[in-house]
Amino acid sequence: MEGDDTLQLRVFDLNCWAIRYLSKRRQERIQLIGDTLRHQGFDLVLLQEVWSEQDYSDLKARLGSSYPFSHYFRSGVIGSGLCVFSRFPILDTLLYQYSLNGYPYMLQHGDWFCGKSVGLVIIKISGIIFNVYVTHLHAEYSREKDAYLPHRLVQAWELAQFIRHTSKAADVVLLGGDLNMHPEDVGIRLLRGWTGLQDAFTEATRFEGCEDGCTLVPNNCFTVKSELLPFPLGIRIDYILYKAVSSFTVKCEELKTTTGTAPGMDIPFSDHEAVMATLHVRRQEQAVGASLGTIEPALVDVVTEARTEVGVGLRAAQRQRYSTGRLAVLALLLLLLQAAGALGTLAGLAAEQPFPKLSFSLLAFLAIGVLLLATGLHLFHTMEVKMLQGTEEQLRMALRALQERL
Amino acid sequence: MEGDDTLQLRVFDLNCWAIRYLSKRRQERIQLIGDTLRHQGFDLVLLQEVWSEQDYSDLKARLGSSYPFSHYFRSGVIGSGLCVFSRFPILDTLLYQYSLNGYPYMLQHGDWFCGKSVGLVIIKISGIIFNVYVTHLHAEYSREKDAYLPHRLVQAWELAQFIRHTSKAADVVLLGGDLNMHPEDVGIRLLRGWTGLQDAFTEATRFEGCEDGCTLVPNNCFTVKSELLPFPLGIRIDYILYKAVSSFTVKCEELKTTTGTAPGMDIPFSDHEAVMATLHVRRQEQAVGASLGTIEPALVDVVTEARTEVGVGLRAAQRQRYSTGRLAVLALLLLLLQAAGALGTLAGLAAEQPFPKLSFSLLAFLAIGVLLLATGLHLFHTMEVKMLQGTEEQLRMALRALQERL
Repeated sequence: MEGDDTLQLRVFDLNCWAIRYLSKRRQERIQLIGDTLRHQGFDLVLLQEVWSEQDYSDLKARLGSSYPFSHYFRSGVIGSGLCVFSRFPILDTLLYQYSLNGYPYMLQHGDWFCGKSVGLVIIKISGIIFNVYVTHLHAEYSREKDAYLPHRLVQAWELAQFIRHTSKAADVVLLGGDLNMHPEDVGIRLLRGWTGLQDAFTEATRFEGCEDGCTLVPNNCFTVKSELLPFPLGIRIDYILYKAVSSFTVKCEELKTTTGTAPGMDIPFSDHEAVMATLHVRRQEQAVGASLGTIEPALVDVVTEARTEVGVGLRAAQRQRYSTGRLAVLALLLLLLQAAGALGTLAGLAAEQPFPKLSFSLLAFLAIGVLLLATGLHLFHTMEVKMLQGTEEQLRMALRALQERL
Repeated sequence: MEGDDTLQLRVFDLNCWAIRYLSKRRQERIQLIGDTLRHQGFDLVLLQEVWSEQDYSDLKARLGSSYPFSHYFRSGVIGSGLCVFSRFPILDTLLYQYSLNGYPYMLQHGDWFCGKSVGLVIIKISGIIFNVYVTHLHAEYSREKDAYLPHRLVQAWELAQFIRHTSKAADVVLLGGDLNMHPEDVGIRLLRGWTGLQDAFTEATRFEGCEDGCTLVPNNCFTVKSELLPFPLGIRIDYILYKAVSSFTVKCEELKTTTGTAPGMDIPFSDHEAVMATLHVRRQEQAVGASLGTIEPALVDVVTEARTEVGVGLRAAQRQRYSTGRLAVLALLLLLLQAAGALGTLAGLAAEQPFPKLSFSLLAFLAIGVLLLATGLHLFHTMEVKMLQGTEEQLRMALRALQERL
């Protein structure tokens, strides 16, 4: 706490782009991130895409003296990539894995294997309880034809619900992460509207960094320039969001981003820019009501829009469930036909095997392969349908509750 | 509210055993459950194993007049099977899917396909906020060699953490469900110790029903008698647990179970007995502290025991990850060898194909099959290892925090 009951909190957020064997100059950058953070007096460091536990251990060893408390969130095949370093003791943690996260067969995108999640750490500073959330949502590979929009919306909704339900005893809520959504996208409007979180960039008294607060900029030597062609300034997809829930206020005094290179260096930390916020937390004389007390009518439109998009995803998933199911049935029929033919030959009904043995066996193996694959996909899309239906229903309930309160 | 500021709440909990095509006399029993509940004045009905949404819709239609509010939790391939009917409006819901839940290849057990979860519904009665949880943990197929114990322990831990983190603004916490654990099992001691939940059976002023409160009894015509041989009275695995978190007290005035048949009928509701509790909620003059304020030293032993069991599971998962990985590599080597042989023949290095074409192709298909299967299993066990490691670390953190506070 400074004088007059104000606590200053400095938060650092970065998508580290640390994919083993794939990310360029990974170890050098991890070392650079560690060295820079050690000398800068942040209170909280929220990192994403630290996929390798070895990288986390390296960071932990490097940062141990300045940030004695840390947590790595494990999930999925590869890991969630999420970790937190803190100057203050971490009292408790919880991980929530999003129920939808892309498709296992989209190997070139690979999001499914990461088990995308939101991690919560609870920290108490000068008697103030901070619920700190770190997350990374599904990537957007094509803005024009964004096949993952319904999944990202389900994630945004689950994130909002998880924050609401777990932060009821917190004084201050902080969320940092790569949300893979532009500031005006429906998912971020839903998340902010439903939780009451404020955007550090728009609220900041002072800002210094990339124009419009962009965090994926053409100026960064690791970004794919062709993907940023429609956005000459870059895009803003990494955020620090916050709110005070009880008798506190939070103000963002300063927000900074790196600008294509790490401070004083010739290479960037990552292909994303780091976001650094200086927050002032102040105890209020009079307690304020819960943030959901003031519902804006615009929230109804946002929830409706989100529901429509989830509905589009639901119908696509239902179509895929149907077509994979039909394929499985066809493969099964072919196998049964072959089995009947083979049995007929064995029983001497046919004079001799009408097909060459090799083609016959190859066909059978192909049918078995298609049957297994199609069944697996059918089960997967059945799960997808269930989760999209569940979210759509929840959004419907939310809408009804909002309309009643308006 | 009755006079003197006491609210009476009647809760009904039942594992309905409603598996389509498999459970005996399913539709008749669902009808019976609906008809009975309609005429009994329960306030809250917590059901498990309602796998089919059609059954839920049937129940909803039958119960609509008595319990106008309800929620069905969707998850997994089949569904979570969880639903709640309530006399009072449901304000909000949240679903948490357990990160481990058996193995997809254990088709005969099938738990994996259910996406086992805990569902939360928030209800406000006379100004008192109730957080009501309904859940169903992984089944125990063999008590002597319980291969699923580590998974069930991870679920019990996640359940405890989910309840703790989401119930901070609740006045009363209620949990109903089939926990698939005997009262003295480590998982239930962990759950109760870590959350402070009380067992309605042991706390009840009056009890009426099966001896020892058993909910799976030989007397029920649907139970498998051979499985209950070591337990002549049956076993108690279905629970109603509760606690008051703020300035309230909860007392269980009466607990009842069905006794092998539905009241006044000749068939049971299910292969499980229903658990019915009458709770009295009273506002206290003086607020009580959070239940975690009073830590019992025994909790340290419980957490240690749970950690040991999770460790056993972790080592088993690591062994399976290794052996499936090795199998995948061997299959890949065989395929490469075959490819080299085939290329050699094509290039005319060998005078003629040394193997018959049919066996050669069959072997190649077999190798591809083994490679795909082993790779899939390897990925699955990698996830399993990650989640067990994560839970073990959380238990270690919990242990450290407990020891510091003692």
